[in-house]
Amino acid sequence: MTLSQSIQPVSFGLARPDQVAGLTGLEMLNAMLAGELPAPTMAETLNFILTTVSEGEAEFRGTPTDAFYNPMGIVHGGWVMTLLDSALGCSVQTTLAAGEGYVSLDTDVKFVKAITADTGEVTVTGRVLTRGRQIATAEGRAVDAKGRVLALGTSSCLVRPLR
Amino acid sequence: MTLSQSIQPVSFGLARPDQVAGLTGLEMLNAMLAGELPAPTMAETLNFILTTVSEGEAEFRGTPTDAFYNPMGIVHGGWVMTLLDSALGCSVQTTLAAGEGYVSLDTDVKFVKAITADTGEVTVTGRVLTRGRQIATAEGRAVDAKGRVLALGTSSCLVRPLR
Amino acid sequence: MTLSQSIQPVSFGLARPDQVAGLTGLEMLNAMLAGELPAPTMAETLNFILTTVSEGEAEFRGTPTDAFYNPMGIVHGGWVMTLLDSALGCSVQTTLAAGEGYVSLDTDVKFVKAITADTGEVTVTGRVLTRGRQIATAEGRAVDAKGRVLALGTSSCLVRPLR
Amino acid sequence: MTLSQSIQPVSFGLARPDQVAGLTGLEMLNAMLAGELPAPTMAETLNFILTTVSEGEAEFRGTPTDAFYNPMGIVHGGWVMTLLDSALGCSVQTTLAAGEGYVSLDTDVKFVKAITADTGEVTVTGRVLTRGRQIATAEGRAVDAKGRVLALGTSSCLVRPLR
Repeated sequence: MTLSQSIQPVSFGLARPDQVAGLTGLEMLNAMLAGELPAPTMAETLNFILTTVSEGEAEFRGTPTDAFYNPMGIVHGGWVMTLLDSALGCSVQTTLAAGEGYVSLDTDVKFVKAITADTGEVTVTGRVLTRGRQIATAEGRAVDAKGRVLALGTSSCLVRPLR
Repeated sequence: MTLSQSIQPVSFGLARPDQVAGLTGLEMLNAMLAGELPAPTMAETLNFILTTVSEGEAEFRGTPTDAFYNPMGIVHGGWVMTLLDSALGCSVQTTLAAGEGYVSLDTDVKFVKAITADTGEVTVTGRVLTRGRQIATAEGRAVDAKGRVLALGTSSCLVRPLR
Repeated sequence: MTLSQSIQPVSFGLARPDQVAGLTGLEMLNAMLAGELPAPTMAETLNFILTTVSEGEAEFRGTPTDAFYNPMGIVHGGWVMTLLDSALGCSVQTTLAAGEGYVSLDTDVKFVKAITADTGEVTVTGRVLTRGRQIATAEGRAVDAKGRVLALGTSSCLVRPLR
Repeated sequence: MTLSQSIQPVSFGLARPDQVAGLTGLEMLNAMLAGELPAPTMAETLNFILTTVSEGEAEFRGTPTDAFYNPMGIVHGGWVMTLLDSALGCSVQTTLAAGEGYVSLDTDVKFVKAITADTGEVTVTGRVLTRGRQIATAEGRAVDAKGRVLALGTSSCLVRPLR
């Protein structure tokens, strides 16, 4: 798998149905990477973006800011949970045929190292572990620029036909 | 446990160390409820707020907006994960003596029902299940105004002396 | 819900298909309680038994012995995991219509207190939290005779037609 | 890491304190592999054994039998949970200095593929992901002889001085 593409300028919002009809999961994510589909609004709100995608894998990068703090003076755990949930879900999305959708059933996150605005860019990767007919599982991790693990995650997703 | 207080106007930011020195966890959260301590910036960013707190329990309320969407046209799972992580952690915080701190080791979330901007106000409660000397566990749930369960969560926290 | 029935003498093994055809999940578990269906062999191997069942709930009791130890001189975590997995799964089973089956997708266990052969009888309860068309979630706990929590668990199950 | 040693004949029971005093976690596990320390009784009860160990990794093998069945006619989920819990915990144990002990805080298992007595030998590996001063995390998987994934697991462990 090749995992490097430069980040494109993006708009934020929802794709129109006609923009995604007939696309596989991987094609949709590649279109988002290329800036042909908008990035989701949550990515703008929490300052992260899809950076690379390939069969069974997805990578996001984000940078924490002062707007994401909890009362204890560190970045809220919800920030890295959001990035992990994105990476885990999108890694599963890369395995979807046209006409298939998915929902995350659960996302479990282990917090390893506190994140602050000084942490700098965080890279979050998700990787499919198993893909059955209905259930897919994925694991992910968030690391800082020095490769130190900040958090770990796993998800189970339910794959189903789009109605 | 009495669980109702009206929501106070709040500022967002970090408390100064002199504002929290010597407070128990419950006193800190009550001061936040009373508007005497700022709410964390993540609460402003993701539009939620602490609404009630008592020994072993914490409740947050939030309202999802168009700014929190994922590419599938629903609110990103990270939004409710953040609220659950807040409620779970703060329920543990209510058990802390002055001089004690905590970190969340893990937060596991099960997604039960999709959330959209039409869902309206979401109430998220956390409740301590067990409190040992070092480890506390908590469970939580997010419900809509009709009481329908949207998501479930559990956390383990490590309690330790503030340095 | 009434939750008390005296434990019946049981045989261990597998029910014949004709013994369970047309039964709901709750009817099957009640037949097992009444000794009309065999208990599973794992219950004999790990010394536990179904003790009560009602809509949305199941209770097992077991007694740890020297045969279940880990190298650290306490009962292996797998023992209470097995009882929790049983209680969680059977609580979901009580919600099944005739012709429906289920599989556990995941079981997550938090270990709260060490168990030894001196712990005596352990009671493990499972309770359905949510039941959708395809996905059910349940929570459970293991307690000793004094009501002290030994372990906590959650499961997600996939409900599907029996083929 | 070299991961191959032939399986030794073993006795089952508990090591005497004088047999393990002053040993690191890895030394203890190597002594068990060499048959110099007894294997735990749970390994005999559930028919599995430690097969290889190295810094940060542990592998167990087990073979399911008719004695481990659930009412649905497949091997009880508790069997593979027990093997995963063993592999996850022992992978953490390999990182312990002499005088350090650990407890598993939680073990989360995803069931991927049903196991029966026809599955044959199951290999379960655990691998440390992160090792902090107090908290270690590990991931594991169970596979059959053809390498098909049967189940996945993660654990968090608390490391602490032996009293």
